Amino acid sequence: MSIASLGEFELIARLTRGLRSQAGVELGVGDDCAILDLGGDLLLLITCDSQVEGVHFTMHTSSPDDIGCKALAINLSDIAAMGGEPRYALVSLILPRQLPLAVLDDIYIGLRREAERYGTAIIGGNIAGAGQGEQLIIDITLLGTIERGHAITRSGAQVGDTLCVTGSPGDSATGLYTLLYPDLPYPQNALEQVRAHHRTPRPRIHEGRILSTLGPSVVTAMLDISDGLSGDLEHLCERSHVGARIDTSRLPLSPSLQAIAACASLDPLSWILHGGEDYELLFTVSPANEQAVIEAVQSSTGTAVTPIGTILPSDEGIKLRYPGGHEEPLRVQSWDHLKSET
Amino acid sequence: MSIASLGEFELIARLTRGLRSQAGVELGVGDDCAILDLGGDLLLLITCDSQVEGVHFTMHTSSPDDIGCKALAINLSDIAAMGGEPRYALVSLILPRQLPLAVLDDIYIGLRREAERYGTAIIGGNIAGAGQGEQLIIDITLLGTIERGHAITRSGAQVGDTLCVTGSPGDSATGLYTLLYPDLPYPQNALEQVRAHHRTPRPRIHEGRILSTLGPSVVTAMLDISDGLSGDLEHLCERSHVGARIDTSRLPLSPSLQAIAACASLDPLSWILHGGEDYELLFTVSPANEQAVIEAVQSSTGTAVTPIGTILPSDEGIKLRYPGGHEEPLRVQSWDHLKSET
Repeated sequence: MSIASLGEFELIARLTRGLRSQAGVELGVGDDCAILDLGGDLLLLITCDSQVEGVHFTMHTSSPDDIGCKALAINLSDIAAMGGEPRYALVSLILPRQLPLAVLDDIYIGLRREAERYGTAIIGGNIAGAGQGEQLIIDITLLGTIERGHAITRSGAQVGDTLCVTGSPGDSATGLYTLLYPDLPYPQNALEQVRAHHRTPRPRIHEGRILSTLGPSVVTAMLDISDGLSGDLEHLCERSHVGARIDTSRLPLSPSLQAIAACASLDPLSWILHGGEDYELLFTVSPANEQAVIEAVQSSTGTAVTPIGTILPSDEGIKLRYPGGHEEPLRVQSWDHLKSET
Repeated sequence: MSIASLGEFELIARLTRGLRSQAGVELGVGDDCAILDLGGDLLLLITCDSQVEGVHFTMHTSSPDDIGCKALAINLSDIAAMGGEPRYALVSLILPRQLPLAVLDDIYIGLRREAERYGTAIIGGNIAGAGQGEQLIIDITLLGTIERGHAITRSGAQVGDTLCVTGSPGDSATGLYTLLYPDLPYPQNALEQVRAHHRTPRPRIHEGRILSTLGPSVVTAMLDISDGLSGDLEHLCERSHVGARIDTSRLPLSPSLQAIAACASLDPLSWILHGGEDYELLFTVSPANEQAVIEAVQSSTGTAVTPIGTILPSDEGIKLRYPGGHEEPLRVQSWDHLKSET
């Protein structure tokens, strides 16, 4: 039996079953970040995520600068997903021996610029040779801080809460599609927008900070959309022991996504529901606070927040409601590194 | 120009030049661990190191259990090298899709056993597919703690200090040699010992803890020997702005190393001076404290500590003194992931 038959999340569950905890561990495996309480004023958030050449990026479809930027951005997004402030990064590189120095320099320029943009210090790392694999891999560990009692986890969603999302999920997958199928007559403006979303996603640090200031009694659960809206909603529901209903008519399809879907004769819902790598925030709020929360984020950051559905009891599962009221179960189709044939 | 022409350490210097620091960073890039002061009673140590299939290990020469164990051990050794207590680990895996599940299970058994042996909790991590590289990579970030004012860095060695080493460096390289050239008539006992040193090095956590209790006024500088005694001594000398002299007659050649060197008709000094992956501690002490320090470590842990030389002014460089008094410059020949042809 090979690992591909299990897939990423079953594998994590299998490997980490029965792990012992230790003093100071407030939250271990299973959320966007682990949380450590080391006795200071702030709690520590810690996460790691890697970008593998040929799996997450190629040198043909992204510039070295963008690759470096995104390698940090996906980790920043995990800190954002708990409402934290990013602070310290360790950068572990696996490098092919024949990598041109100029390419590595440019990767690091993008990485350092992104670090400075979000007030993050690079404090360490490691370099190893890639050997015969000859693949570039950037694996980053990021530490952040969060005020006591303010971290927003995946597990606090309550039945009746409103499900909200920042920005326009699906744009990244749309951008990837245009890179894989470059020959259609896409509208130029739309093309540039969705490709930028794919190549250099903007982690929602500021939005997350506002949500964590309101605290987990208002914003009851949160994660970032890395695997796709449907897959990540499933993660949230599993950890919170709830179900959910998405109203398809409320999904914030960007004009660019819609234009490109029309051009490619594809269903725009497929990208917004199942496309990964958006790094938008998906969160739940009590209905009484819905308007205040949306306005707090939008007025401070200019980022749109859209209520897209409702949290249901777990036995209702996860469903889609179409215009007219027809409902059907949501088929999760998130991307899996191990199962995918990429 | 490719990165191989620069090598690991020049590359790190190039990429991290002019990095901005941030509040809380007590020590950044350039030592075994970074040190963070987050306001609690203890300071935080953090390090990361990876093991790449075909570069650091092969499935032919190590068991999956040993591979998992060693992947954590090399990180534990970095915590030991500052005198810290290991606490929390994040495990990032890059996995070939066709990896048998049983192999991964065994890797994790070794990793978890090593974590429990040293009181370390696995609190997070990541799994990504290896894509076409088809190489297994284990990249671990390890956090530890250290009492304020007790971390021992690479930079405190003083002229006149005694240079000491734990255990028997060179055994790991000797073990690797016997795996690469398995057909010589090696003595069986010696063979098992040096191969065990190579496959499952023991991080010197307990020894490091005793040394940090004595504090940096007694134990002035320390690192672990991962790249080889000569290469790591060069790192210590660079960071402390000193030179050093090693007395070859005092080098603690293990009987196993000597027996295998004799069998292979090779110079045993080459393995003890330049062989990597020993994970012994190399440290400096003021001469007045030399005997007390050696006895403190030996009596508590049973690990031999050997004084092997003296710290000199930096303009004297790093030299070897042979029996009879002849001296010559030490030619550093440490292993470089990027320059090596492995």
